[in-house]
Order: sequence, then C-alpha cells, then structure tokens
Amino acid sequence: MRDVRMRGFAERADVEDVLAFLARETRLLATETVPLLEGFGRVLAEDVTSAVDVPGFARSAMDGYAIEGAASFGASSYEPIRFAIVGTALPGRPFSGRLEAGQTVRIMTGAPIPDGADAVAKAEICEERDGRVLVSESVAPKKNVGVIGEDIRLGDRVLAAGRRLRPQDVGLLASIGRAEVACVRQPRVRLLVTGDELLPAGSRPSGARIVDSNSVVLRGLVARDGGRVLPFEIVPDVPERIRALMADPEPDVVLVSGGTSVGQEDHAPRLLAELGSLDYHGLSMRPSSPTGIGRIDGRFVFLLPGNPVSCLAAYEFFAGPTIRALGGRSRAWTHRRLRVPLARKLASEVGRTDYVRVALEAGRAVPLATAGASILSSTVRAAGAVIVPREREGYAEGELVEILLYDDEPGNADEVAES
Amino acid sequence: MRDVRMRGFAERADVEDVLAFLARETRLLATETVPLLEGFGRVLAEDVTSAVDVPGFARSAMDGYAIEGAASFGASSYEPIRFAIVGTALPGRPFSGRLEAGQTVRIMTGAPIPDGADAVAKAEICEERDGRVLVSESVAPKKNVGVIGEDIRLGDRVLAAGRRLRPQDVGLLASIGRAEVACVRQPRVRLLVTGDELLPAGSRPSGARIVDSNSVVLRGLVARDGGRVLPFEIVPDVPERIRALMADPEPDVVLVSGGTSVGQEDHAPRLLAELGSLDYHGLSMRPSSPTGIGRIDGRFVFLLPGNPVSCLAAYEFFAGPTIRALGGRSRAWTHRRLRVPLARKLASEVGRTDYVRVALEAGRAVPLATAGASILSSTVRAAGAVIVPREREGYAEGELVEILLYDDEPGNADEVAES
Repeated sequence: MRDVRMRGFAERADVEDVLAFLARETRLLATETVPLLEGFGRVLAEDVTSAVDVPGFARSAMDGYAIEGAASFGASSYEPIRFAIVGTALPGRPFSGRLEAGQTVRIMTGAPIPDGADAVAKAEICEERDGRVLVSESVAPKKNVGVIGEDIRLGDRVLAAGRRLRPQDVGLLASIGRAEVACVRQPRVRLLVTGDELLPAGSRPSGARIVDSNSVVLRGLVARDGGRVLPFEIVPDVPERIRALMADPEPDVVLVSGGTSVGQEDHAPRLLAELGSLDYHGLSMRPSSPTGIGRIDGRFVFLLPGNPVSCLAAYEFFAGPTIRALGGRSRAWTHRRLRVPLARKLASEVGRTDYVRVALEAGRAVPLATAGASILSSTVRAAGAVIVPREREGYAEGELVEILLYDDEPGNADEVAES
Repeated sequence: MRDVRMRGFAERADVEDVLAFLARETRLLATETVPLLEGFGRVLAEDVTSAVDVPGFARSAMDGYAIEGAASFGASSYEPIRFAIVGTALPGRPFSGRLEAGQTVRIMTGAPIPDGADAVAKAEICEERDGRVLVSESVAPKKNVGVIGEDIRLGDRVLAAGRRLRPQDVGLLASIGRAEVACVRQPRVRLLVTGDELLPAGSRPSGARIVDSNSVVLRGLVARDGGRVLPFEIVPDVPERIRALMADPEPDVVLVSGGTSVGQEDHAPRLLAELGSLDYHGLSMRPSSPTGIGRIDGRFVFLLPGNPVSCLAAYEFFAGPTIRALGGRSRAWTHRRLRVPLARKLASEVGRTDYVRVALEAGRAVPLATAGASILSSTVRAAGAVIVPREREGYAEGELVEILLYDDEPGNADEVAES
C-alpha cells in the first residue's frame, strides 16, 4: 500500500462506488429482546402474530342500554318501547345475569354485552323513568356492538419484521398482551477523536487549543440514526492508543475523527490498513475528500476528516446510512426535503460530488459564501444542504434544487417556507 | 353547568375555535439550565453570543509548509524555491520560534501559523529533500491560512432564543466553550388513565379485561413532542382518586383517557369543572367528538376519549400542539406530508372536521373501511391520516389530498412512494 502521508491522494474514488460498496457489505445486526415500553422507534426483528382476540368479548360501542334489538322494532318518540332496568354493565364489571324478555341493563362503552342482549340503544334515544327506560327508535340487532376480534383476531399477523415501531404499534403490541418484543440490536458506535490540540466539550478554548466539537455533532447524529454511542474520551495522537481502540471488538462502527488525512501525524489510515482493510481513502467529493472507509473483522471504520463541515458531510454520506442499515432502518437520508429555486449559480465540477450548505432567503436557496470546511458556523447559519451529483457541473441561477433541511420538523421560523 | 352524563352534548364546538383558544392561552414554560450534551433537540431560551474567537489563533488550513508567501513568488516545477526546514508545527503543539528569511516549518492542518510565516504551501506542491523543501508554485500571502475568528468572532450572536438545537448547534456551543445552555423547560405530562377494565401494559388480556394501550401510545407521542411523562399507573374509576391526581400541581399538562364522555362513570368532566374550568366538552369532529379541554390553575387538562383512535386523534389535534408550544416548539403537526390522489370518494359533512386513516396503495390514498374509533389496528395498517376540514363535504375520487404520514422518516417500505 502506498503511503499517502505528505503526498496527497493519487486517485479518488467516486461517491457512488463507495455507497454501492457499503450497501453490499452491510449486514443486519442480530436480534435482541426489548421491554415493550422501550420499543418506540425500534425496528422489529420478528413477524408478530396475535395470540388473542381483541376484544376477547362482545362489547358495547356506546353508552346506553343493552337490549334484544328485535324487541325495539316499531319504537318511535310517540310510541316508545319500555324495558325494565335490572342492572348495570360496566367496563371490567360485567352484568353477570341473563336478560329476559323486556329487560335491559344500563351499559357503558367497552362493557361486555350481557347474555340475552344483542344490541345497544344509545343513551340519546332513551329516557330513564322509574326503573324503566323508554326507547324511542328501533335498534337493529348487532347495533352498537363490537364483536369478538373486531380490532384484532387471534392468528392475525399484526406487524411484520422490519417495521420501525410507531407509538400506535407499541400500543397494539400492548393490547395483544406482549410484554417484550424482538428488535434489531442498536448499532454500538465508538467515537475515536484524536488531536493533541483538542479540549473536551465543556472546556473554554485557550491558546493553541480548541474545543472538540466533532464528537458532539457526531453524538447527535448517531442518536438520530438509532446508534448507541459508547463511553467516550479524546485520544492523544499516539498510534498505540489509536490502534488499541480500533482493535476493540465492542463497537459495530468506529467513527475516527482527526488524523485521517495525509499529514505526518495522520496514523489512522495506516493503522486501519494493518488491522483490517482500508477499502477507500480519498474520495472525489467536496468537502470530505480525505474520508477513508475500511473494516476490521466485519466492523466498519469511517475515517472522518477533522474539519467540522467535512466531518459532518462524510458522516451523512457514508456513516449515517451504514448505521441506519445495520439497525434495520432505511439508508435514505432522514432529512425533510424542500424544492426551491437557486438564488444564484452554484458551480461544481463533473466527476465530483459536492455538499453545499445553503440558506433560505425569500423562498430561494442561497449557497453560503464560506467555502471553508473548517467553518462549523456555516452549518448553523444554513437551512440545509444541496447535493450536486457527480454528473453535474452545478446548477444555474433560478434552477430548482432540493434542499435537505437540517431541521427535522417544521420550526417556528420556517413554517412559511413549508406551507 | 349542564350535566351531560347519559344525555349527550347539546352543542359541539368547532375545532378551529378550540385551536384558537389553545394558541391564545398557551404560555412558554420557564427556562432551565441544561448540560451541553443533553441539549440536542431542546429549545434555546437565550440568545447566545460568543465570548471567544474561534479559532483564537491563525491556523493552517492544509498539511504542508508554513512560509512567508512573498518568498515563493516565481516558483515553478522547473525552478522550485527552497526553504530550510527548522521545525514542525502541530495542532496543539505550536512551533515556538520565529521563522527567518528562507526558513519553513512543516505544518499540519489546524496548527498555529508560526511568527514570520503568513502562508502555507500545501504538501502536494512541495518536495522534501535533505532537510529542505522545494516549493514548485507561488503561494500568495494568507493562502491556506485561517484567520483569528474565521469561524466565529468574539461578540457574534451565534444562536437566537427559540432555536431547536441541531447536532451542529450543540457542536458550535462546545466550540465557543459553553458547558451549559439555557433551554425552555420540557413540559411535564401526567397520563391519567382510568378504567376498571384495564390491565397494565405487559399483561395478557383476560375475561372482560383489556390491556391499556392508550397510555402506551400517548407515551410515544409525548416523547416525540418533547414532553416528559411523569410516573404512571392506571387509576381506578373512583372520583376521589381522579380528583387528587387532577389537582396535583406537578404536571404542566394532564392527559385524561377514559371516563371523559357522557357515561354515568364519566367523572372527569365534572371534576375538571369543579377544580378549574371545563372550557370545551363535545367537539364537532369525527372521531374524538367527546373530547374535553379545560384548565386548573393554568395547567391544561385534556379529556381524551377512551377509544384508541379517538384518543390518538384528539391528542394530535389539541394536546400535541399544546405540549410542543409550551416547550417552545412549533404548534404545526410534525408529520411528513405526501400529496396523492384519492383512490375513492371520501365523504364528510360540512361543519365537522374528520380525521381519516388512509392506506397508500399504488400511489393513491385508500380510506380505510373501518369506521370504528375502537379499532387501534386501523392506525397500524394506515400509512397516515387525511384531515377533512370543517368547510368541506369531503373529497372526490381522484382529488389530491395531503396525507400526514405516520412514519417520521422514509422507511424501507415507502421509499418508492417518497421518491
């Protein structure tokens, strides 16, 4: 292997090739059992079949009076039909007797229909008087009765493996009596941030030292993508320390930030090649061209550039989709999208993929002037990013582009743009 | 106040009026200090101004050699200009001396520019040989140098109050040395689920008892909306117990599920009216018409119907936006939206707002046949919901409707529909 340190990359791989490689090499993680109430947003690893009927009994769909429907035929407000009230059926507290002809019980929504009744006269058409109820409309048999299994039948396949559990899915699992559910394990992610110049988040920058922001940004992105960040501390630029962390089998994904390019202190690419494979190093994209990607015993290692914008973009292109796919989620970018015209020309080069931060002004995308991959604040000012694919020289002023929005829901600020 | 128990609602309020009432009455919660790494997704309660320059020193933007740019003028690959290498400048480990004419130091990206240098010749145009480096292109002064404050200047307002913090925002706060940040407090939400028929989630349904799924669904929705669910257990249908929990001042929002309609065991509306105000009870919508809304000492109390679909819809229309707004987020529904034609006619009534679950089939919205508000599984089968506003009689077959998608990101299943 050619040592790229202080020489630069001889050739650069295309983004599409790297993405195809990652899609090909990613395997779904194993299954784990998750307590029901921790299931929100997790990915099902089993097909779920109901072992019960829901409801398991015929129930009232209304507040009213349980009757034999046929006995109400002909009732009107002029000639109501009377039933003698012999009790009450409440949810969880059924009426235990059997109704005889001309009898009724008060019944509440969700209560079991008593024997001898087959319909519920809703309260609005009834009038209670002296222990009797006057029903002023005909009530057809089965009216306002929820049958056994009307929601879910025993044996129904209610959810399929691969499903990302919504709140109502977890509710449904509760209703069929599940206490646990088999989900795809969440990817364990090690953040490996090196740099003798770095102070941990929470410190004040001082002298020639700056505060590590990449691990902070990555922590937020990994959480968004369903990964679990392992305990973290900044690692000195000492090859033995970096090697030991890279060789640790605990994580599914290692995100290395800093020391990944072609500088003389950039040990990570060589160490990765020694411990496993450095499948790609140097990509035809801007920013993030020094990105490297490799594997050690089936674990993915992403060498993310130290510059914060490059780190963010390389994560979004390569690491994020891989983490999502390992956990059973879609590789697709999670961002909301907005199509708007460009406020001014956006230049790129054929053969290179660009990740361009843009602001939204008066419904148009304004490419941010700061070219620097070191300018984290540009991603804070930006509304999102526009990707210029490899085959394009860029976009003309006024051309429609798709913004990948940084905010994951409509904000108080951009509701107008979203409408 | 008229007792609606076993009588039904005399009149029903319009959804728009209730929403206007909620928007008018909601106040932003107070501020709390949040450790930086817990700030993701939280809403800023302060304008953040940087107390430092980032970087605080001029730094190299490239791996290469720090030189006085003017000394390289005229260099070419045929006639490279030589500099004597007198040391190395690394990130966090500056070169402490001063460069004299004809001298250079190796410099890595992020390292401080030494005194006497004003530019960096990138490694690719340099060749190192015998303690010297040959520079083969002119390098203009300031080339590849990041100036003090190039990312953030001391005194810059970097983030404004009201901002929902993205990963890169938290990274930026780290880079300016913040360890904590002032955020809007997260709404505390009490789930008050009553029903003697209910078993807690994790139980098997049996006999006339069903498993409480509403608290499970609500728990997921509240988390999505930035609320914190207080410790929870199912409450028996005993007015004194319900009253004590309603009167508890700890929550900002109380979500009552069950016992909220006009049945004889429906105590919640009366208790709410006694303890505070029952501002609305009975809404012109389907499902969820028995929804009630009130306040006790400034806390919002939502009486959500016990039927699971009604509970979900009433939460989405009224409680969710209120919880988001209390926490400083947008009232707007958080759902991704998709415009597609209707597969068949969708009937509604002028004057009533409908929440219709729809499936997505072959790029068309199919209203689900199950009318029942008791059918939780319909929200599991559905791709999302279509809202038919008050002023419409419905939508015709083929008409474009907007689906509020239940999945909050592109799934493995619906990528085709999303493209």
